[in-house]
Amino acid sequence: MTATLELDVPQPALLFDLDGTLVDSVYQHVIAWQEALAECGIALSVWRIHRRIGMSGGLFLDALQRETRTTLDAATLARLATLHAEAYLRRADGVVPLPGARELLRVLHDRGVPFAIATSGASRTAGSALSLLELPDDVPVVTRDLVERAKPDPHLFLAAAKLLGVDPRQSFVIGDSVWDLLAAQRANALGIGLLSGGYGREELQAAGAYRVYADPAEMLSRLEEVGVRPARG
Amino acid sequence: MTATLELDVPQPALLFDLDGTLVDSVYQHVIAWQEALAECGIALSVWRIHRRIGMSGGLFLDALQRETRTTLDAATLARLATLHAEAYLRRADGVVPLPGARELLRVLHDRGVPFAIATSGASRTAGSALSLLELPDDVPVVTRDLVERAKPDPHLFLAAAKLLGVDPRQSFVIGDSVWDLLAAQRANALGIGLLSGGYGREELQAAGAYRVYADPAEMLSRLEEVGVRPARG
Repeated sequence: MTATLELDVPQPALLFDLDGTLVDSVYQHVIAWQEALAECGIALSVWRIHRRIGMSGGLFLDALQRETRTTLDAATLARLATLHAEAYLRRADGVVPLPGARELLRVLHDRGVPFAIATSGASRTAGSALSLLELPDDVPVVTRDLVERAKPDPHLFLAAAKLLGVDPRQSFVIGDSVWDLLAAQRANALGIGLLSGGYGREELQAAGAYRVYADPAEMLSRLEEVGVRPARG
Repeated sequence: MTATLELDVPQPALLFDLDGTLVDSVYQHVIAWQEALAECGIALSVWRIHRRIGMSGGLFLDALQRETRTTLDAATLARLATLHAEAYLRRADGVVPLPGARELLRVLHDRGVPFAIATSGASRTAGSALSLLELPDDVPVVTRDLVERAKPDPHLFLAAAKLLGVDPRQSFVIGDSVWDLLAAQRANALGIGLLSGGYGREELQAAGAYRVYADPAEMLSRLEEVGVRPARG
């Protein structure tokens, strides 16, 4: 019998996006953005908003100005953010955790797997979604207002890894959008795509996903694929 | 100089889906279904509803019962349809034509290209969307209640071709969902996918799209690719 080689492979940490990944809130955010834009006299097709959700609000508004060939002043940009938050919170009653989200986080917590949440959302709208998850007190949460740049820049996930005290290169980023997976690459982490934000499987694969699952429930049923071992009986 | 061979290649007819193809109504339909289902005590993630939109309501509810492992009685099924229509009509104020939709139909009309509309929607909800398009009176419109089966069965598009008096094999079906493109194949027509319903390009290509465009505006700018010639000056 040969001896096993000693290798330093730590338990990976898991860095989760929030909207569309743990809570079923993407479509409400999309419609809320459409309503806010319409109130400011800006017409943008809903699918184009959907494809931008999850990226930094600033980059979203930059892309919007380019696509609609308009220039928005600072007051309009601030008003859009407020109108969006208000329109979202009016719809927040219909937002629920995604199937398996609470169970997945409970299992990770019980097994001592380090995990954190990193969202491009502002603390105002994120708070209402986070309250659905019944998170343990010691789970780090990074919102947009805590970092200089949002996705697809890596700052949110790097901050989450830092708060956990883990190496981002030993982490998985779990998200529903192309922007999460691009930010994962920028952070030198591996990305896991979930279909629960409404993007197509191939879009997520093309953005570099290591694996794609339907939702947190399917990911929970395949945790060994991301290096989380079954509990020993 | 050689003579050109005489070939019988007629001007293709265009058979359009409605929601997500000509009007920007998919996300409102999706949220309306979620609300209707929640009122009947059925929890279903929004992205799963989105991926079913555009197929027959009956097949949608069959798939729903399979996925949620429930059995719905006839009264609940009827109530769901009513609740969905009411929830959609409450949101219909935010629904607008997609960019280029009116212009595309006007150009086709002016050039004498035969076209029709075929929607899986009921006449009640479709009527509100159709009114946005300012259709000429002679454009055939086939709604769900006029045929035995909806998409991905070919009946809606076959009925539209019949009303136009054209051969479906000489027609293009234009739709935003996988179900439109599968129904196009069943009707022996070619399918054109539009991204404006929020599906990914690769999903539409995998369902057999001959071409994929962003929205009616992009299709209008490339009409020669579907056999519609520029007007002669």
